[in-house]
Amino acid sequence: MTTLTFEDFKLGHFGTFGPRHVTREDILAYAREYDPQPMHLDEAAAAKSMLKGLSGSGWHLSSLMMRMMFDGFIGRTASMGSPGVNEMRWLSPLRPGDDLMLDIEVEEARVSSSRPDTGIVTFKGVVKNAAGVTLAEMVSPIIVRRRADAAAE
Amino acid sequence: MTTLTFEDFKLGHFGTFGPRHVTREDILAYAREYDPQPMHLDEAAAAKSMLKGLSGSGWHLSSLMMRMMFDGFIGRTASMGSPGVNEMRWLSPLRPGDDLMLDIEVEEARVSSSRPDTGIVTFKGVVKNAAGVTLAEMVSPIIVRRRADAAAE
Repeated sequence: MTTLTFEDFKLGHFGTFGPRHVTREDILAYAREYDPQPMHLDEAAAAKSMLKGLSGSGWHLSSLMMRMMFDGFIGRTASMGSPGVNEMRWLSPLRPGDDLMLDIEVEEARVSSSRPDTGIVTFKGVVKNAAGVTLAEMVSPIIVRRRADAAAE
Repeated sequence: MTTLTFEDFKLGHFGTFGPRHVTREDILAYAREYDPQPMHLDEAAAAKSMLKGLSGSGWHLSSLMMRMMFDGFIGRTASMGSPGVNEMRWLSPLRPGDDLMLDIEVEEARVSSSRPDTGIVTFKGVVKNAAGVTLAEMVSPIIVRRRADAAAE
């Protein structure tokens, strides 16, 4: 399998990945470890919350977006890591049983000035449930190696 | 224990929380589930990576910041959830054995115009290792209920 390098990321729609099924146990397991707020862990408390029922942590949804990006393309990309996240919006709750689909768009792609053998690709990810409701959007730059013969051009 | 409401969050430094110890197994467990890139999972590959040694996923560090916020004050705050993250910067790698400390500042606090019984408190979190090196910074708004008698004022 060919490794994707900076040159493979053109502006515009890159791909749609999923589905990723999310169980009640997945939601509880993440919440117990990282975000044990009652709305993510306790059915009775969750029913009374603003989100009206058990919902996954936004950080869980973000972690799942990372995993879907890995399975979709990062796992075969010459990725060198990421300096952070420009923006993350949690728009609708993640629910037990959701099947997630992730749309990825390349918003920006530029060669690094400090490391000319790498580029920075800024991705916009939009994750939806099976009903097509957008659950979250994020904008995230990733450092990607350039093709070996490209840096010398 | 008194529940913290919107009125308890004044502009400026709010608190310092931790330490939270992070083991090699913690790093591997998160990576296996959410971010199985070699730099987070494979010692030999990690040694050759830009980060020169096994490092935790940025998303793991973000998840740990959420947990430290929960343990520090969110767990006793009338929190109603969060609309997202304004910015997240991963500045230095999370390493096995790190002991994390989290500084929390209130950057902004305003009453919601659409839900006058709530306010939006925007926190800046800075997480450091025991050597005082900043590993990550994030700016994140949280929706917090106002004191029962405050909304009527």
